[in-house]
Amino acid sequence: MSSTAGQVIRCKAAVAWEAGKPLVIEQVEVAPPQVNEVRLKILFTALCHTDVYFWEAKGQTPVFPRILGHEAGGIVESVGEGVTDLKPGDHVLPVFTGECKECPHCLSEESNMCDLLRINTDRGVMLSDGKSRFSINGKPIFHFVGTSTFSEYTVVHVGCVAKINPEAPLDKVCILSCGISTGLGATLNVAKPKKGQSVAVFGLGAVGLAAAEGARMAGASRIIGIDLNPSRFNEAKKFGVTEFVNPKDYDKPVQEVGFKKNSLNMIIMILEQVHRYMIINNICADDGFDNQVIVEMTNGGVDRSLECTGSIQAMISAFECVHDGWGVAVLVGVPNKDDAFKTHPMKFLDGRTLKGTFFGNYKPRTDIPGVVEKYMNKELELEKFITHMVSFSEINKAFDYMLKGESLRCIIRMDG
Amino acid sequence: MSSTAGQVIRCKAAVAWEAGKPLVIEQVEVAPPQVNEVRLKILFTALCHTDVYFWEAKGQTPVFPRILGHEAGGIVESVGEGVTDLKPGDHVLPVFTGECKECPHCLSEESNMCDLLRINTDRGVMLSDGKSRFSINGKPIFHFVGTSTFSEYTVVHVGCVAKINPEAPLDKVCILSCGISTGLGATLNVAKPKKGQSVAVFGLGAVGLAAAEGARMAGASRIIGIDLNPSRFNEAKKFGVTEFVNPKDYDKPVQEVGFKKNSLNMIIMILEQVHRYMIINNICADDGFDNQVIVEMTNGGVDRSLECTGSIQAMISAFECVHDGWGVAVLVGVPNKDDAFKTHPMKFLDGRTLKGTFFGNYKPRTDIPGVVEKYMNKELELEKFITHMVSFSEINKAFDYMLKGESLRCIIRMDG
Repeated sequence: MSSTAGQVIRCKAAVAWEAGKPLVIEQVEVAPPQVNEVRLKILFTALCHTDVYFWEAKGQTPVFPRILGHEAGGIVESVGEGVTDLKPGDHVLPVFTGECKECPHCLSEESNMCDLLRINTDRGVMLSDGKSRFSINGKPIFHFVGTSTFSEYTVVHVGCVAKINPEAPLDKVCILSCGISTGLGATLNVAKPKKGQSVAVFGLGAVGLAAAEGARMAGASRIIGIDLNPSRFNEAKKFGVTEFVNPKDYDKPVQEVGFKKNSLNMIIMILEQVHRYMIINNICADDGFDNQVIVEMTNGGVDRSLECTGSIQAMISAFECVHDGWGVAVLVGVPNKDDAFKTHPMKFLDGRTLKGTFFGNYKPRTDIPGVVEKYMNKELELEKFITHMVSFSEINKAFDYMLKGESLRCIIRMDG
Repeated sequence: MSSTAGQVIRCKAAVAWEAGKPLVIEQVEVAPPQVNEVRLKILFTALCHTDVYFWEAKGQTPVFPRILGHEAGGIVESVGEGVTDLKPGDHVLPVFTGECKECPHCLSEESNMCDLLRINTDRGVMLSDGKSRFSINGKPIFHFVGTSTFSEYTVVHVGCVAKINPEAPLDKVCILSCGISTGLGATLNVAKPKKGQSVAVFGLGAVGLAAAEGARMAGASRIIGIDLNPSRFNEAKKFGVTEFVNPKDYDKPVQEVGFKKNSLNMIIMILEQVHRYMIINNICADDGFDNQVIVEMTNGGVDRSLECTGSIQAMISAFECVHDGWGVAVLVGVPNKDDAFKTHPMKFLDGRTLKGTFFGNYKPRTDIPGVVEKYMNKELELEKFITHMVSFSEINKAFDYMLKGESLRCIIRMDG
C-alpha cells in the first residue's frame, strides 16, 4: 500500500480552461479512487487528434475546465473498493473506452462496445457518483473520456485499464492506448487481409499508418496509401506502403478511368462511369478522391480498404474501390455529425462488404495486453510512430506539432 | 449418344413475342450445342419474378422475341465440343449465372461472380458465336440469361449447368436453380446467424421465405418477418417465422421508439432519434418500414437481417435494425437503377456490417449439387415453396398466379 492511498494527492495537471486556449499547468487535487476505480501515476502520455478536437470544441459540447489526454502509460498508485484484478505497482494503459465483462457486448466475441463504459465524450465526471475526482481549491475540473492523462495522477474506472507486461517500455507502448491500436486492429481484426492481398489505406496519419503496419504484418502484397499531402509518402514507406495516390492529381474522373483491354468490358465500364456520375454526383459532391484510379491500378479493385480520415467522400471512395465479389472496406475515421454515406446499393449486391470499427475491435482489458506482446516480440514496430518527445511543461508544443501536421506521435514525459 | 445429337431438334417452346403479351407455344428449332455448350431436355421449369420482370420489360432493355425461363430441371441430351464433365443422361439444373472455374472470381473462395458467365440480362445470344440456338423458320428467337427453360429443349453453356444426384426429383429441386438458393444461401453463406441468434427477414416472397428457411436450419431463436401483406404471416410460420411486423402499422416512428430503462440511455436514444429524423429523413423518404420497431422488439436490434424486397427504404431499415457491435445485414433484393443507399456512417462505425449477395454466394457447379443433397437428406424442405403446378400449355396461368401474388412457386410440367 502506497503512503498516498486513501489521501487526496496534490500534483501537476495541464488544465484546458477554455476552448482553443493553451493548456495551463496547475496544481490540482486528485481524490482517492471510489468503488471500481483505480488511481494511476501517469509516466508518459501522448497527444492524439481527439484531444485536439475536444480542446478546439468546434461543433462539440464544450466541457471546461477539463483535463484532456487519453493515450498514456502509468502505474497503479491505489485501488478503490471492489477492485480485485489490479494492485498498486501494476503497469497499465488507461483506455478511453472500457470493458465491464458483463454486458451483452462484453459477452459477445464480436463486439468491444461495452454498454457501461463505451466512450462518452460529453461526460466530464465519474460514473459511480457523477462527480469529478479533480479539483482546484474545491472547484471541480472535468474529466475527459474517463482517462484525463494530462495529469501526474488520474482516476480511472477499473474497466478502462489494461494491465500489461511490466517489462514493456511505457514511453513506447503508451501509444497503444488509442490511435495505433485503432488502425492496427482495423486491419488485423476487421479487414483481415489474406497474405498476398492488396490493401488501400485512405489517410496516412498515425491511425492510417497503423492500419498500413497491420497490412504489412498480415503479408499484404501491395499497400496503396491515399493522402492529399504528397510529403507523407516517404514516411509511409517505413510502414509498408508500396504505392501512393494523391487524389488532387486526379480531378477529371471520367478520363482517368482504367479499361480492361476488352471492348465489351470497356463499353460496360464507360456506361457504368456515365451512370455513376449521373447518379452519384447528383447526390454528393466529389471532393477529389477518385476510387476509379485505384480500381484501375488493381485490375478491378483492392481486396481490402481502410478509411482513416473521417471524410465522407473518402468513405464512399474506400467502399467503391474494393473488388466486387470479395472486397471488404472498413471505416475507421469518425465522420461529421451531419454526414450521409451514399452509394448505389448494387455495389453491395455485387459482393462488396462495408464494416466499421471502433478501437480496432480490441477489448481493452482482454486484448490490449496481447498487442503489447506483439511489440515485445518485435512483430509490431512502434518507434517509427514516435516523431517527437517533450517534457510536461512543454505540453503546448505537442499541440503545435500536431496542428502543423509535423508529428505522428509526440510523447509527453510527465517527469519533465 | 442420343439419336438427336448433332441434329436440329424441333420442339415446343413458349415464346414471348413482345413485352407484357401472353406467351405463345410455338414450334421452334433448337440447334445443336457448340463448343462448351450442352443441349438439355427440360422436364420441369418454375416461374420466378425475374422472368416476369423481363417479360414486362419496364425500364429494361426489351429483347424480343425471346424464350424466358431460368428455374428448371432437366437431362443432358447432347454435349458440344470440349465438354468433358457432362454426358447425355446426366440430371442437371441450368443456372442463370455460371462458373468458368478459371477467372479470379471462380478461383476466389469468397466470390461466385464469374467474370465470363456472370448473369447478363441484355444478351440474347450465346457467348461463343454471338448467335441464338433458337429459331422459327430461320428467324432467330433470343435467349434469356443463358438458360431459356420455357422450351422442351434448350442450349446452355457448360459453366451454367449443375450436375445433380439423379435420384433427386426434378419437379422439386428445379426451384433450387434461382430464388430458393438465393434466399437460402444469403442466410447460410453470408449472414451466417449463430444458433440462438435473432434474424429479421424483409419481404416474405419465395426468396425471403427461403432466407427464413435458412435461419430455421441455422437454429435462429427468433425469425421476424416484415411484409406489407399481413396474410403472408400464416404461410411464413411454416418457414420458421416466429413474429410478424407490418410496417403499415407503424407510421409514427418517434413515438414507437423503445427505450432501455435507463435514463441516460433514454436521453441518448431520444437525441439519436431526433437527429436521425432531422438528418436521414431530409435525404430519403420513409415509406413506412420502421426499423426502430424491430430495435425495440429485440432490445437493441437483431443479430442478422436479410433484405429480400429490393425496396431501397427496406434496405436502409434492414441495415439500421441490426444490433450495434455485431449486427450483420445482407442485401438480396435487386434495387432500381437510380436508387441510392443512404445512412449515417456512424451506423457502420458502431460495429454494424452491410453485405450484399448474388445467388446466395453459391457457385453453381461446385455448390448447388450440395444444396440438392440438403433436400435429399431432409435438412431442407422444398415442398412448402411449391404452391401451384400447371402443364406447359397453361404457362400463362403461372404468370397470372404470380402477378396476383397467389403463388410462391408454380411448377410447369413440360410434358403437359
